[in-house]
Amino acid sequence: MNKKLIVGIIGAGRIGKVHATSITNYMPKVEIKAISDVDSKAAEDAAKNFGIPFAYRDYKKILDDPEIQAVLICSSTDTHSHISIEAAEVGKHIFCEKPIDHDLDKIKMVLEAVEKAKIKYQVGFNRRFDHNFKAVRSAVQEGKIGDVHIVKITSRDPEEPPIEYVKVSGGIFLDMTIHDFDMARYLTGSEVKEVYAAGNCLVNQKIAEAGDVDTTIVTLKFENGAMAVIDNSRRAEYGYDQRAEVFGSKGSVAVSNDTASSAVISTQEGIISEKPLYFFLERYMNSFVDEMSQFVESILNDSQIAVSGDDGLKAVLIGLAAKKSLSVGRPVKVSEIG
Amino acid sequence: MNKKLIVGIIGAGRIGKVHATSITNYMPKVEIKAISDVDSKAAEDAAKNFGIPFAYRDYKKILDDPEIQAVLICSSTDTHSHISIEAAEVGKHIFCEKPIDHDLDKIKMVLEAVEKAKIKYQVGFNRRFDHNFKAVRSAVQEGKIGDVHIVKITSRDPEEPPIEYVKVSGGIFLDMTIHDFDMARYLTGSEVKEVYAAGNCLVNQKIAEAGDVDTTIVTLKFENGAMAVIDNSRRAEYGYDQRAEVFGSKGSVAVSNDTASSAVISTQEGIISEKPLYFFLERYMNSFVDEMSQFVESILNDSQIAVSGDDGLKAVLIGLAAKKSLSVGRPVKVSEIG
Amino acid sequence: MNKKLIVGIIGAGRIGKVHATSITNYMPKVEIKAISDVDSKAAEDAAKNFGIPFAYRDYKKILDDPEIQAVLICSSTDTHSHISIEAAEVGKHIFCEKPIDHDLDKIKMVLEAVEKAKIKYQVGFNRRFDHNFKAVRSAVQEGKIGDVHIVKITSRDPEEPPIEYVKVSGGIFLDMTIHDFDMARYLTGSEVKEVYAAGNCLVNQKIAEAGDVDTTIVTLKFENGAMAVIDNSRRAEYGYDQRAEVFGSKGSVAVSNDTASSAVISTQEGIISEKPLYFFLERYMNSFVDEMSQFVESILNDSQIAVSGDDGLKAVLIGLAAKKSLSVGRPVKVSEIG
Amino acid sequence: MNKKLIVGIIGAGRIGKVHATSITNYMPKVEIKAISDVDSKAAEDAAKNFGIPFAYRDYKKILDDPEIQAVLICSSTDTHSHISIEAAEVGKHIFCEKPIDHDLDKIKMVLEAVEKAKIKYQVGFNRRFDHNFKAVRSAVQEGKIGDVHIVKITSRDPEEPPIEYVKVSGGIFLDMTIHDFDMARYLTGSEVKEVYAAGNCLVNQKIAEAGDVDTTIVTLKFENGAMAVIDNSRRAEYGYDQRAEVFGSKGSVAVSNDTASSAVISTQEGIISEKPLYFFLERYMNSFVDEMSQFVESILNDSQIAVSGDDGLKAVLIGLAAKKSLSVGRPVKVSEIG
Repeated sequence: MNKKLIVGIIGAGRIGKVHATSITNYMPKVEIKAISDVDSKAAEDAAKNFGIPFAYRDYKKILDDPEIQAVLICSSTDTHSHISIEAAEVGKHIFCEKPIDHDLDKIKMVLEAVEKAKIKYQVGFNRRFDHNFKAVRSAVQEGKIGDVHIVKITSRDPEEPPIEYVKVSGGIFLDMTIHDFDMARYLTGSEVKEVYAAGNCLVNQKIAEAGDVDTTIVTLKFENGAMAVIDNSRRAEYGYDQRAEVFGSKGSVAVSNDTASSAVISTQEGIISEKPLYFFLERYMNSFVDEMSQFVESILNDSQIAVSGDDGLKAVLIGLAAKKSLSVGRPVKVSEIG
Repeated sequence: MNKKLIVGIIGAGRIGKVHATSITNYMPKVEIKAISDVDSKAAEDAAKNFGIPFAYRDYKKILDDPEIQAVLICSSTDTHSHISIEAAEVGKHIFCEKPIDHDLDKIKMVLEAVEKAKIKYQVGFNRRFDHNFKAVRSAVQEGKIGDVHIVKITSRDPEEPPIEYVKVSGGIFLDMTIHDFDMARYLTGSEVKEVYAAGNCLVNQKIAEAGDVDTTIVTLKFENGAMAVIDNSRRAEYGYDQRAEVFGSKGSVAVSNDTASSAVISTQEGIISEKPLYFFLERYMNSFVDEMSQFVESILNDSQIAVSGDDGLKAVLIGLAAKKSLSVGRPVKVSEIG
Repeated sequence: MNKKLIVGIIGAGRIGKVHATSITNYMPKVEIKAISDVDSKAAEDAAKNFGIPFAYRDYKKILDDPEIQAVLICSSTDTHSHISIEAAEVGKHIFCEKPIDHDLDKIKMVLEAVEKAKIKYQVGFNRRFDHNFKAVRSAVQEGKIGDVHIVKITSRDPEEPPIEYVKVSGGIFLDMTIHDFDMARYLTGSEVKEVYAAGNCLVNQKIAEAGDVDTTIVTLKFENGAMAVIDNSRRAEYGYDQRAEVFGSKGSVAVSNDTASSAVISTQEGIISEKPLYFFLERYMNSFVDEMSQFVESILNDSQIAVSGDDGLKAVLIGLAAKKSLSVGRPVKVSEIG
Repeated sequence: MNKKLIVGIIGAGRIGKVHATSITNYMPKVEIKAISDVDSKAAEDAAKNFGIPFAYRDYKKILDDPEIQAVLICSSTDTHSHISIEAAEVGKHIFCEKPIDHDLDKIKMVLEAVEKAKIKYQVGFNRRFDHNFKAVRSAVQEGKIGDVHIVKITSRDPEEPPIEYVKVSGGIFLDMTIHDFDMARYLTGSEVKEVYAAGNCLVNQKIAEAGDVDTTIVTLKFENGAMAVIDNSRRAEYGYDQRAEVFGSKGSVAVSNDTASSAVISTQEGIISEKPLYFFLERYMNSFVDEMSQFVESILNDSQIAVSGDDGLKAVLIGLAAKKSLSVGRPVKVSEIG
């Protein structure tokens, strides 16, 4: 009960600050001792703002501090795997933002290092902790809808990311749909065996020029016979559209978007309710707090991690299968990848 | 204004009686002069019930009556094409229940006969006339959602049909999804060029034994770059689930299920609203009336038919492509069929 | 089963034609033999349109026809009571549009004549037959919400009636709220003992000049301890607003408005659904058919009438109490009236 | 920007801890220096839990601390007025929980002391800060619904309070409806001139024995001609029911309940969504944070207070008018009170 956890945050960008906020506001058992960023000014500003004692340019200073028990890896994606390995080797528990890496071999090396070090390793699939999606999962697990037959996930961003990001993100399946691939596994509790991806560039031709699509429909087949469909768009004019439905032998469970209020205005123009929350931080703030709480609890109580490194691997495998499917124009088995 | 249309109904089964009801209740301009059925008792009962002067066993007596201007072909599917051709040859206008046939050549012969006879030929895709789906189509056509990017159609029956029907229906894509294929064309106003069908038997193993699936997810690619996904189940425990959503460059339009009332009951158990209407006749009654009205108007005013023989052909082509896709396990171009 | 009912319609205005339509379309057991109207052209047009054999200027010709078993009194309100009495005296069953009269003595004379003649007498509170309000009543009667504590009825017209009508209608409580007074009794199954009416003229000053209000909140106390509140407006810009909620010891049941479709359009402007149906005939068409069916059935089967003359009297009593309450500025007991 | 506010909290009960939580989690500019409670153990526990330096039994020690700039009065209602006066006299800014007092003279003395001391004085009508009710107010103020005609507020508790509380609370109008009276003023921006209260004891007979009612319908007339109706129940089996609707010359705006998730489960039993949040702290947490933030900002920026002492007075005046109305059985003008 009186146990306390001392953590360091690697990366003082947007998501690093989200976690610093969650810990500062809600987790009296956790102390952030240090924060690092390649931009040392960013680290210093964050330290000042959150009352963090130490700010570094080099994340290794965090790894070298024997008092720090856990690290949150919030740096750029290309650094996730090697920092994970280094941190595991010095025995730190690790919360790592998704994806672990785009390269399967690197991910596997991380998983091996984690396994060897016997540390806790949680991957940042925050949507699993969202109030709506948790409610779907619970209904499924409690048997309220029977055996799962069909999963439908709608995931549309309010606007496309900068083209510079599109060029290095690994493509829509690895930077955007990857959340939905994890969600499909989470909601069904089953593994994906085959992927068929249809996609097109309908929103912004610069995305096509960068070699990617912006609108996709992906069909998944699961080992237990269930099927899922995910539809993505990089731009929904009405806001951030995040819905899911699971249909089964006894019925269905569906969740819709969150709004800033329940206000409905009725006039000659029609019956008008609020648009979905526009920004992902606003929409998913509760989930960021919850994922961090559970990470902390799993360390303090030595209990099972909520989202494992294997979950991180599986989502990338499905993403790579989707990428290949789009490229070759046919369904691709996950077993064909890696 | 004072014009009147004299029709005959071929087939006194469920759907024949639906049309007889619509005409009797709502269409003072139409007179049903005769009804036929291979089961002469059924024809006689219907004649008595609807006040139809003549009841026959042989539909040819209807075709032979020069006073009858139009026929409604409501007999079994395997008779649709040859009766269509015979009726066209004697110059009757024709309303034909879907599908025209499962055989492409027969459909083409019907279309040729229709073309030659210069008659009106409407196919019974009644859902186009449903108040909800019409509202989606209108929103799309009025440009409210911009260019179409993604179409989603959910179509789930309340329970599977008799296995005897499954054995002869042509399979789920030709007896059930065919409505959704037509709907996808209707909502987008574009033609389907490629089909990918995933399917499984999850509801009733007897359906698998009969060589069919009962749960499917079908992806369509359109010529204009849009994509659609249709999910079907033969059994939704909560009732007849008929929804659609079209997403485009400016937003989306979606329709949900109809219920018997808007009553919401709030108790300790939860907030409970009514299930969708269970039975297709109840759900789609308004559409059956409207499709018949429009058929009548197109004859009386010599205006364009609402659902053409070509629409009937296209839906079957997509259905056959879906069937092939499921069988070969890859996307199939509609141009590969026929 | 083979019994047939022969009726005459007195009054060929809007509501007379509504009932003629219902009977013609849905009631094969009923034959409309004659229709009358002080405007003989209106009677003739309706006769022609609905295929009614006889059209009269004088309703007495209908009362004199021994073959006619029942009459529908759809003439102007000031004629309801004396035609009711005359029709009862010649043994016709009677469907009478609401209100029976504004004068309590005249209503009582009608009820006595009906009692004496042992005929069926139904008053036209059609909303009792509406699918939504029936669902509320059923939930209450089946005990789903326990004992009734609070009833809330919202009843707002899309626009105010012509001022000429306002001047002779008996005022808002007798021409508009009277439906809600009946609804409150219907939903609770209890009698009103006290009425408090607040009202103001906020929509159209000509209504104030005509001596009436256009916006009201009326509180009812029932004999069983429950309370109700009714809010009315003569003008809701978004359409015809007809809702009700009953709250009780175990929960609540609520119904909302009907719309032309379930379409929801999501754009930058917001999430927009359809306005309520605007016109009362459109909104309540199902209820007009049902009330007439039940009237017919109660005659053919000699079963209990659905809405009795006493129901007609009670609603007027509450209306007069409301009128007095507004005038004297305090709650008025129904027992103070008549 | 670098300004900081030092506060003391008087009362370490439920609501005192709510404010301590809000400040600790969200208000880096505020430091809680001391907390007091007549139960010194409660003060000490809270101090420890929130890291507050000083815990006292006697609130006067807080008033005596010259470093403390503002106090939050969260003690029992009967102490609000005299502590307010004492605190004002020593120049502390004051946040006072509602109601200021049940006695009009005492409230007026508070307002005079506040006026004289030129301090900020905010009353704890937290619901004004709720996301839903703010949305209603905004729609009204932005003219979206035109002139206000009718306000409807539903406010039902999930269960009745302990009878001991009912005996001293001042009655339902002063402990429960008082929030709705303030809400009615807030939503309309107009003053109440007359009140009519109907009430009954339908939930728990012990409440009647304690001299109170548990179910009420209160009608308000405003100076600008608008009317409002508030319905209250001490027990809604389905949870905490907090809704409002404002209807005006151009349309209406309505808000419904908040739920834990948007999950809808469809099965043979019906279409089931989540019950409203049950507990007021859960439902209104966002509003407690916001009201405290605004109190802090109004001091730091010397800007206008969001809910004034006069607002506190007005709500009590309406409550006393409602109490009198119920007692004398007629509408009561607010000007008759005080």
